[in-house]
Amino acid sequence: MNTRKGNINSVAIVGGTHGNEFSGIYLLRKWQQLPDAISRSSFSVETVFANPKAFDENKRYLDCDLNRQFGFEDLNNTELANYEQSRAKAINYQLGPKGDAKTDFIIDLHNTTSNMGPSLILLQSDAFNRKMAAYVKSKMPDAVVVLEDQVSVEEHYFLSSISAQGVIVEVGPQPQSVIRQDVLDWMEEMTGHILDYIDLHNTDKLPELPKSFEAFKYIETLKLPEDEQGERIGMVHRNVQDADFKPLCPGNPIFTLFDGSVICWEGDYEAYPHFINEAAYYDNNLAMSLAKKVTVEV
Amino acid sequence: MNTRKGNINSVAIVGGTHGNEFSGIYLLRKWQQLPDAISRSSFSVETVFANPKAFDENKRYLDCDLNRQFGFEDLNNTELANYEQSRAKAINYQLGPKGDAKTDFIIDLHNTTSNMGPSLILLQSDAFNRKMAAYVKSKMPDAVVVLEDQVSVEEHYFLSSISAQGVIVEVGPQPQSVIRQDVLDWMEEMTGHILDYIDLHNTDKLPELPKSFEAFKYIETLKLPEDEQGERIGMVHRNVQDADFKPLCPGNPIFTLFDGSVICWEGDYEAYPHFINEAAYYDNNLAMSLAKKVTVEV
Repeated sequence: MNTRKGNINSVAIVGGTHGNEFSGIYLLRKWQQLPDAISRSSFSVETVFANPKAFDENKRYLDCDLNRQFGFEDLNNTELANYEQSRAKAINYQLGPKGDAKTDFIIDLHNTTSNMGPSLILLQSDAFNRKMAAYVKSKMPDAVVVLEDQVSVEEHYFLSSISAQGVIVEVGPQPQSVIRQDVLDWMEEMTGHILDYIDLHNTDKLPELPKSFEAFKYIETLKLPEDEQGERIGMVHRNVQDADFKPLCPGNPIFTLFDGSVICWEGDYEAYPHFINEAAYYDNNLAMSLAKKVTVEV
Repeated sequence: MNTRKGNINSVAIVGGTHGNEFSGIYLLRKWQQLPDAISRSSFSVETVFANPKAFDENKRYLDCDLNRQFGFEDLNNTELANYEQSRAKAINYQLGPKGDAKTDFIIDLHNTTSNMGPSLILLQSDAFNRKMAAYVKSKMPDAVVVLEDQVSVEEHYFLSSISAQGVIVEVGPQPQSVIRQDVLDWMEEMTGHILDYIDLHNTDKLPELPKSFEAFKYIETLKLPEDEQGERIGMVHRNVQDADFKPLCPGNPIFTLFDGSVICWEGDYEAYPHFINEAAYYDNNLAMSLAKKVTVEV
């Protein structure tokens, strides 16, 4: 387990990695006016507007999903030169380079159309992150912790994997291209708690934390029902819609086909769906992610 | 008052007027497989996929909003030749021409990101429409009736204004580019009741209807807060978010500026906001529509 001992000296807060996820973009604007809101005495903070052109066009991306372009091989493949592939290299140069990054910690701000509330997505479950999650949950009981630690941070292709430490703040439900105050407030609050945690860590002033907390560990992604030609033939069942992080048991309805018939889930574990019916995932016909509920020792 | 005495002989059901409002598009596909669901013995029904190219590109529109192109002057202005302006002329030729339409009744299927539930938008409040709304509400108590009868049908620029009679079925909340089962089911149910009503009208078999019903009469549209440069500086207040068709009284909070200050509504009547924070209206920085609650005599 990779336990961070040293201080975090530099933090980057990234918004607009997806151009139609507005909360992070508007928070960056706000913090440009009110920089004290994100400054802490023990580290430097910079803000990065990752995909301004996609925002201008009111789209998630122009050519390809920016938040899938930060794998080592792709960053080093000079043939990959479309807009997002170029942005990825530019951001890697600015904050990284991945593997030896000048930035110690990245907070990447995202919205989802799914009913996920304020979610803290961790790419590794080392002691530093476990304490961070425990701290955030102690300050913000609505917060949900998601572990996407199935591979190492460096093997991930997310923007936040540029630095050795980082998080994805994922807040919903919010339609694309909309600003909801509840979602904006959640994102701002969670970001503030993360910055506070880093500051308390740096200054060795962390309060006593709970001994354990509940989290959701990513297991698999399910596709929407398709016919043999790959045409979508069904949708998320109404019982599952909006039921992010609620249990789905083997045999429960999961999809309704357009002809009215119902498909039940045939897994062999109690699953916790999330990213349910996320608009952006229709490109790849993805219906939801499934997690297992776990208890994390701090 | 324009009371329709004659029969409705031809009905058109239109989906995909906006390419990222999926319910109507998927219902059209379903009904192509199961045409009995929309056929009634006393009239013919055709289906029209209004903006297939916007759907292919997963956008509301390519060049301009198709559902604003059906004003008389614009339909007759041959200079207006972009994609949606051309689609408008083609659809007017297919279903109209407006003012002397071969189609007697148009049902135009729409989604909104606003929390409007299943809404029936009427462009005139003649006896035929009043009975229709009373019938639909008697079958579907969740249905909301919105009167946009501030001008005559012919003066409207909506697609459904091609024919002398028609409705907009507007169902939400649904993010753009998503299919929610609850929203799809509401749209299908409301469409079925409208078709049943027309059939009962034609065959003189209408049941006894309530003597009156509650509706919401459009008054005005409010913009999001802007600075002098036209930059958005605020958002819908969290108390108003999702509170479509709930009363907003003079002095109630309506917007939160990004600097944290709160703007209250300064109108002089009890308003019923709807289309609150609709994603598609950000183009024009519109925040919501306001209505007055009225009692409609049948």
